[in-house]
This record gives sequence, structure tokens and C-alpha cells, in this order.
Amino acid sequence: MATIAVDMDEVIADALGEHLRLYNALFGAVVSKDQLHGYHLRDIIPSENRQATENLVHSHDFFANLAVMPGAQEVLKKLSRDHEVFITTAAMEVPNSFDAKYKWLREHFTFLSPMNFVFCGAKHIIAADYLIDDNAHHFKLFKGQGLLFDAPHNRNVTGYRRVKNWHEIDQIFAKDLVISR
Amino acid sequence: MATIAVDMDEVIADALGEHLRLYNALFGAVVSKDQLHGYHLRDIIPSENRQATENLVHSHDFFANLAVMPGAQEVLKKLSRDHEVFITTAAMEVPNSFDAKYKWLREHFTFLSPMNFVFCGAKHIIAADYLIDDNAHHFKLFKGQGLLFDAPHNRNVTGYRRVKNWHEIDQIFAKDLVISR
Repeated sequence: MATIAVDMDEVIADALGEHLRLYNALFGAVVSKDQLHGYHLRDIIPSENRQATENLVHSHDFFANLAVMPGAQEVLKKLSRDHEVFITTAAMEVPNSFDAKYKWLREHFTFLSPMNFVFCGAKHIIAADYLIDDNAHHFKLFKGQGLLFDAPHNRNVTGYRRVKNWHEIDQIFAKDLVISR
Repeated sequence: MATIAVDMDEVIADALGEHLRLYNALFGAVVSKDQLHGYHLRDIIPSENRQATENLVHSHDFFANLAVMPGAQEVLKKLSRDHEVFITTAAMEVPNSFDAKYKWLREHFTFLSPMNFVFCGAKHIIAADYLIDDNAHHFKLFKGQGLLFDAPHNRNVTGYRRVKNWHEIDQIFAKDLVISR
């Protein structure tokens, strides 16, 4: 049995999709995920839009409305039979998000105990065998194995084992592979 | 440099003192900490008062009004110079508490980064060298060294190194003692 820590935004929750939807509605724009190869949204927009764009994420209900990433529920339900699954999200970066994140997890991941939810900042405080995350900086001090969940902003990041989607994670753990970078 | 994980309630925040104050006000009682040797408040009160007593903790502002435990600020400020200090609280047990706990920590522990706050449930997900906690059950699967912070409800608990107060914690880390049970 392994302990698997799983990030929320861009891994099980489509925060970027919602951010783009709100951004496009606010500014009458048509930015898509395809345009964000190697970039965050903030990197490619006019500087005068940046503060309003950032504020969208810090609203109380932003995290309440996120779509579930394809396959996340099915694969985590399966993994949680043989492994200990924790949701480890850097919620401290967005302190307005606590209630919405908790409710979203309770709604969409009913098979996980809230005792396995972790709202943190720095993730090297997490004791797990694996950390599935789209932000590679969390892997630097983490003592387990990082699995970089593919996201537009991290396309140019190297040095970590990249997983494209939940189907690939399912395959990795089903085959009991030695996971290499 | 060690990583020191520190619980909130009964360790840095006097949750029991506030709970007793509210209980006594609600029921016209005079329960004091001295009467709780080996017991939680819920264990010694009439069963018909139990639900209302529990509800006091689950109100949104309960955690906003807690006194800081004597010495916690001074000693943690000192320890955070040489060590990495994380606040690890089982906030998932009281999901209404997130905002109040965050604000309380920001108000009273200004020298700690919010990136070092962890709202969790099970604490064996915490990777730290030490866990200072009043609930011994968190030590069972924890891989570091547990330090049992003395509290009325845990007076009869044995098997762990007990620390009486923050002054004693200061002495332990100042002397660089090998900490034994």
C-alpha cells in the first residue's frame, strides 16, 4: 500500500478552464488552453488586466464551480481501494478558498474521508510515497516521488516523470511499474 | 535544523478555556480545568447538555476568540530561527473553523508564513521530525517523535514524552537533548 498525495487545481479540478471562462467573459476575449503552452494566463494578457484577472481566483466562490478533471473520480476511487489517497492543496495561497474547496471535495469525492484532505502551503511537509502535482516546485524538497501532471503552464518543465492524464496514472499504478523520470 | 509540527488547540490556543467559559455561561455552571483530570468536557456533563456543548465549538467564531497558550509565541519565535516550524491542526474535524483559525494564526503568529500552516485531519501525512500535540492518537502512525503536550484530558496517557508547557519545550530544544519518552 502506497500513500498517494494528489493536488487539486489542474489535477482533479479544472481551475484553469474556469479562470479562462471568467476572463473571456470579463474582457470579451477568446483565450484558450492551447495558447498557454509554457505560460500561465497572467503571462500572456495585457498588464492592465492582470489585477482583475488575479481577483477572479480570489473570489469566495471561484473554487465552488470547477469541473472535475476527466477520469479523476474513477481512477482515485480505484486507487483508494489499495492505497491511501490524500488530497493536498496549497489552499493557503488563496485563503478565501477554504470553504469552497472543502465543499467541492465533499461533493465530487464522496469516497474520500475529509480526514484525508490537507490544506497547506509548502508541500515538503507532506509524508507520502507519491505526489501528483502540476507545479514542479513542490517536488524539490518533497521526499517521495513527484509525478508532474501535464498542464499548459508546465509544458517546458523537464526533470520529472510527466503524466498526461488520469488514464496514464491508472496504468502506472495498475502495472506496479518502477516509476522512473 | 529540525522540522517541528505544532498542533493548535490546547497547545498554542486555549480552546478548552473558551469552551468552559461558553459552557458555564450557557448552563450557569462552574466547571473548571481542574475537574477534567483524564476527561474531556463531554465526558463529565449531563447527557442532555452534550449536543449544545458540542455545537459551541462548531460555531463560526469559536476559534477567533481563543487566548494564546502562555509562552507559545515567545518559544515558537525563538525555535523558528533555527528550525522549520509548521502549525498542523486537525481543522477538517471542524470544517466551520477554517477562516477563524487562519485569521487567528495571522493575528497571533505573525512571524510564521501562512505557507507553514497545515489544515488536515489524519496527521501521519505530516513529514516532520517532531509533532507537539495533546492528542496521542496522532503519534501512532507518525514517523517522527511525538511530544505529548500536557492537557487535562490526556493526564492518564502514558507511552509518550510529556511536556508540561512551552517553557519545558524551550529547554528541551535549547539543550539539544536526545528526546526520550
